Amino acid sequence: MYETSMERIKREIEIISKFTATPGNGRTCFSYSEEDTGLRKYLVEQFTKLGLNISYDAVGNIRARLPGSDPSALPVMTGSHIDSVFQGGNYDGIVGVAGALEVVRVFKENNIPHTNPVDIIVFVEEEGSNFGSCCEGSKTLVGKHDVEDLKGLRNDRGISMYEMAKESGYNPDKIQDFTVKSGDLKAMIEMHIEQSVILDNSDISIGIVEAIAGLKQYRVELEGVSNHAGATPMNSRKDPLAAAAKIITELEDIACNRAESTTVATVGKISCEPDVSNVIPGKVTFTMDIRDVNKQGIDFTVSEIRKKILEIAGEYDLGVIIDLLGDQEVVRLSSMVADKMEKVAEERGFKYLRMNSGAVHDAVLFAPVTEAGLIFVPSKNGRSHVAEEDTDIEDIKIGCDLLLGTILELVS
Amino acid sequence: MYETSMERIKREIEIISKFTATPGNGRTCFSYSEEDTGLRKYLVEQFTKLGLNISYDAVGNIRARLPGSDPSALPVMTGSHIDSVFQGGNYDGIVGVAGALEVVRVFKENNIPHTNPVDIIVFVEEEGSNFGSCCEGSKTLVGKHDVEDLKGLRNDRGISMYEMAKESGYNPDKIQDFTVKSGDLKAMIEMHIEQSVILDNSDISIGIVEAIAGLKQYRVELEGVSNHAGATPMNSRKDPLAAAAKIITELEDIACNRAESTTVATVGKISCEPDVSNVIPGKVTFTMDIRDVNKQGIDFTVSEIRKKILEIAGEYDLGVIIDLLGDQEVVRLSSMVADKMEKVAEERGFKYLRMNSGAVHDAVLFAPVTEAGLIFVPSKNGRSHVAEEDTDIEDIKIGCDLLLGTILELVS
Repeated sequence: MYETSMERIKREIEIISKFTATPGNGRTCFSYSEEDTGLRKYLVEQFTKLGLNISYDAVGNIRARLPGSDPSALPVMTGSHIDSVFQGGNYDGIVGVAGALEVVRVFKENNIPHTNPVDIIVFVEEEGSNFGSCCEGSKTLVGKHDVEDLKGLRNDRGISMYEMAKESGYNPDKIQDFTVKSGDLKAMIEMHIEQSVILDNSDISIGIVEAIAGLKQYRVELEGVSNHAGATPMNSRKDPLAAAAKIITELEDIACNRAESTTVATVGKISCEPDVSNVIPGKVTFTMDIRDVNKQGIDFTVSEIRKKILEIAGEYDLGVIIDLLGDQEVVRLSSMVADKMEKVAEERGFKYLRMNSGAVHDAVLFAPVTEAGLIFVPSKNGRSHVAEEDTDIEDIKIGCDLLLGTILELVS
Repeated sequence: MYETSMERIKREIEIISKFTATPGNGRTCFSYSEEDTGLRKYLVEQFTKLGLNISYDAVGNIRARLPGSDPSALPVMTGSHIDSVFQGGNYDGIVGVAGALEVVRVFKENNIPHTNPVDIIVFVEEEGSNFGSCCEGSKTLVGKHDVEDLKGLRNDRGISMYEMAKESGYNPDKIQDFTVKSGDLKAMIEMHIEQSVILDNSDISIGIVEAIAGLKQYRVELEGVSNHAGATPMNSRKDPLAAAAKIITELEDIACNRAESTTVATVGKISCEPDVSNVIPGKVTFTMDIRDVNKQGIDFTVSEIRKKILEIAGEYDLGVIIDLLGDQEVVRLSSMVADKMEKVAEERGFKYLRMNSGAVHDAVLFAPVTEAGLIFVPSKNGRSHVAEEDTDIEDIKIGCDLLLGTILELVS
């Protein structure tokens, strides 16, 4: 039974994590930055040493092909992203890239015969660190964007993804020439850290992801009357922060106790005006992020919290604006791929869990065009997007072996 | 019966309100700014025209004396502040300065005989716009500060009140030479806008203030664990914003329903980290401002909310820091002065209300050293610290007449 090398995976992760703009303070590697350029150069050198056929799409996603015996067979793609959040960790994205590289090294060193090509994919711009919205590299590759979309994605300084890609030597004007369409791939499989506590709490090495939660995200603005905190009696107030507090509590209660067991709801962002300790706020703005793998959990939560917001705003005599910021449908991944992963895990004696994901990853974008699969490895204490992000190398090696085994099933 | 001139008061308020750094966007006149310097020059010209004796204290509070017939009699002081918040209104502070000027004009034009001197006082730095804490001019005048305190009060750019006063030509090193001590004044009376809704809602022109609410102000920091909003189940969260929401609701409930009828409690400032819509906050910081004219209202609220904070932080498994930011005792104003105000209001047929104040004003600082009095005129809809701040000129005229009548009672 072929196996990946823990030593090699460990070294590869160490090398990749050194490409950071904030050494000693987590990993900061934004797409199209100096660090990103350095890392891409390093990876292309590795792919070249393995004799892979390298190509780039319109925005710089790297594709490195190990040809199979049948030139007309559809490739199996595997990989992840190399960009990070500001001061993020050394595993998010990286384990999937290092894993893909290791799988192809095992193919090469053992001269494993295979029919279908194996394509390593290295995505740009998954985290949204430049343009504020995520999976822009994979969205481009699967044809979700046109040139105008790339021009519209702009960073804080007004520079677009179109301009950055062009500046880096890619050809964003030819976006349609590079897209992956239905029937172009046999499968796409990504390995990623879980970014939650389910695997770590249960001491399980492998998550086989079946579905990705859908999402509705809102911006809520409550407008009352700002006034002096000392001089305004409690019964003469129109305090939007007092109202927001009740709404936040209601949202938590709905998600915890009344919606589906899979529903999660989060207020991650809040601000008030004028934001002065001795002034009753005049305006409060906050976000609501509602997710579930069951659509009815989202629909129920949205409907209940909308009612509650209007009710509470009425009690406090406030103006209300509710804007939809984001809307993603629930995505089901390939059961064919998940079944193959389960078979491999059984054969190799890996502890695994068939599970759902609350977060979207690049592989999810491929569900409409191919058989998409997602392998999770544990995140210690569920931490991610921080320097403390951690996964045991033993678990990463198990993830790599599962990836290898599943790809072997698909390409032989 | 002597009367003030509505026309003159109106014109004076219009002139003073033109000294602003944000024309068309409310009044912005920070102490020691260019606008403040211009306004001070204008006022000193008016005082000079009236033949008043002008002096300045260590930080630039202006004192303009109309001498009485007995040089050894104690002066009656009246006035307010001319500084504003950023984009504030045209009445906060200004009505008290314009009123004091008008009262002295009435004395002069009628050659009213009087024993005691009348001192107009114009305070600097009441709003805290430079140094973040209020009534620094009156605090200095009543001897609450030493030179080191003035050096410690610093604005956002690190420049101290000591440096600003010196730069403006005053002598902050001689702070002790200028202070008003017990036995130096017969009385201090300020007219100010109410900054709340009590008078406006009841259609009453005059508030005779008996006591000023005490205050306890806290900064609360809750520390949980930041995590992915989609990937973290509700029962695995340590969400400090969900906890803060419950605390804010509890604080409102205590102040509305369980403490004294006079208790008010406000959360005016809140922030969370990292403040991203799809990330569970890791840390939340907010302020609590608790006020009451009855000390037991503050004590009860503080004790109850402290218990609740610890209880809720325990439920959510959060770290807690509670810092005391501000602590002011309840202040009782002079009943002798309030009784004289009431007598004048009865004689002149003014609708008045004996009431308490939730906000501190300059006159309050004088309660320990003299007979301190505070007259409120209505704030339309209770609005203040905004460009929309408004008071009917008819009410300001009634306030000026009450101020005049009360001073006549005290100086004859």
